[in-house]
Amino acid sequence: MTQSVVTLAGGVGAAKLLAGLVRVHPPGDLLAVVNTADDTVLHGLHVSPDLDTVVYTLAGAVNPDTGWGLAGETWQAMDALDRYGGITWFRLGDRDLATHLYRTHRLGQGADLAAVTAEIAAAWGLELAIVPVTNDRIETRVTTADEGEIGFQDYFVRRRHNVAVTAVRVAGSQTAHPTPGLIESLAAARTIVIAPSNPIVSIGPVLEVPGVRPAMAARRDSVVAVSPIVGGAALKGPADRLMRELGHECSVVGVARLYRDVAATLVIDEVDAHLADDVESVGVSCVVAPTVMHGVESAADLARIVLKCADG
Amino acid sequence: MTQSVVTLAGGVGAAKLLAGLVRVHPPGDLLAVVNTADDTVLHGLHVSPDLDTVVYTLAGAVNPDTGWGLAGETWQAMDALDRYGGITWFRLGDRDLATHLYRTHRLGQGADLAAVTAEIAAAWGLELAIVPVTNDRIETRVTTADEGEIGFQDYFVRRRHNVAVTAVRVAGSQTAHPTPGLIESLAAARTIVIAPSNPIVSIGPVLEVPGVRPAMAARRDSVVAVSPIVGGAALKGPADRLMRELGHECSVVGVARLYRDVAATLVIDEVDAHLADDVESVGVSCVVAPTVMHGVESAADLARIVLKCADG
Repeated sequence: MTQSVVTLAGGVGAAKLLAGLVRVHPPGDLLAVVNTADDTVLHGLHVSPDLDTVVYTLAGAVNPDTGWGLAGETWQAMDALDRYGGITWFRLGDRDLATHLYRTHRLGQGADLAAVTAEIAAAWGLELAIVPVTNDRIETRVTTADEGEIGFQDYFVRRRHNVAVTAVRVAGSQTAHPTPGLIESLAAARTIVIAPSNPIVSIGPVLEVPGVRPAMAARRDSVVAVSPIVGGAALKGPADRLMRELGHECSVVGVARLYRDVAATLVIDEVDAHLADDVESVGVSCVVAPTVMHGVESAADLARIVLKCADG
Repeated sequence: MTQSVVTLAGGVGAAKLLAGLVRVHPPGDLLAVVNTADDTVLHGLHVSPDLDTVVYTLAGAVNPDTGWGLAGETWQAMDALDRYGGITWFRLGDRDLATHLYRTHRLGQGADLAAVTAEIAAAWGLELAIVPVTNDRIETRVTTADEGEIGFQDYFVRRRHNVAVTAVRVAGSQTAHPTPGLIESLAAARTIVIAPSNPIVSIGPVLEVPGVRPAMAARRDSVVAVSPIVGGAALKGPADRLMRELGHECSVVGVARLYRDVAATLVIDEVDAHLADDVESVGVSCVVAPTVMHGVESAADLARIVLKCADG
């Protein structure tokens, strides 16, 4: 892996930025390092939500209404599963199921997740490299005020992240190994991008895999993060609520504090321009730009700005 | 399990006879003991073809054209799996997938196959009891002339049983335990039926589970088998070819020889009436009747005859 641009990625927000990056930079020179702490085993199938969101989005196959899953999906299997009282709160579409069937089959054959991910990305015709941050099992666990510790998808999908959280940890992260070549890729990259993903439950687990945070810190000057918090709120998902509940300021300043050891630059949205000085006072260079990606054109614009930050 | 009528069952042929039996005998007083040596793990999912064929048929949901799978099925997942070059020769329909998702999930939770099967049958509103012959993993292995030993579905589905076979064995059968209550059910039944299923690869594995053959032999006088061979050929599947290749006479007489230790009576089709004396000379009472089930009415007629044999 010798790509110039490496992006740490979660799901929907990261996928959008990556869709912009492939428009403004040669895809073969891009590497996406994707969170797998959301992965779950459902019905015996290995589901990798963030990897699939990135692949489907870059393939132009994602459901545009949700930002995840496949466009034009059918739901025969889930509907039939209702008869048995099976698990249907995590909706697996019929065509999406094929991805999990294939992944589970290949993992069962002994292939590692990085190899299977490469096969899946190739099957969709993608040219950029997409790797899981680790081939080992890591798992975000969420401690809720009312129910104690639950699995991430239990929190995120089943409870629609509509519960108070007192702690988040990444089980397995202590003993996980970074995907082979990842640390070297971080060392060799010209630019490292932290996508506008949830800092706690998407980028957090990526940084927690042993070796990743130090490798990022060593390249801090070349790391550009894009704030997922805009105007004090998350564009999608529970980043804002989680930051508050876990004692972080829910603003671009809070994001800057979370990333200051690993990123020299933070791109914030224009609505947060008045906080630029506060970001800088945390010790992070601040770039103000339109960060809300309404489509692939605005994503490409943001990608251009991000790459330019790194060159500056 | 205290049913009066216990049926040893394979897939399609057995399902048809059972659909007749539930019409002429109180379903709650019927027990189907189903072969699981065809079970396979595909894409990480536990697939039980014979159990599902029996359930879908009795639920009136089976695909009438094939005798297996669900009527009105869709194939989005398999079509999508083609993109990855995944395993698509074993066709799992979208709605059928739900059964495998549920079974795999429950087995993963620690439920045994008998419990999961009962749940699935109940979900389809079935009143008869359906059990796998064993909760343990047994697996028919087929030695082919050209490729050595292969799995049953590799033989049956992938190669469409269109290869020469030199041996069949049931892996795991030595150490398998009969489903709890099964031996007692055989001892207590008024009538035991051997369905017109493949004697080698459907009924054979059922009899090989430790305890089953002796329990059947002890009840031999109450056991009625229906010949799956009609006019020297199997109505469906490779029973005829397998019998020949493994050194058995492919006729109702060959069937009588295979079952003579465990069944006192064999029902043969009218086209084989001229062989009735030969069957009797093997030491098996012979009943001649229309055995080809074209629909549920003829299945009910055959079921009535089978139950009457046992009373006679």
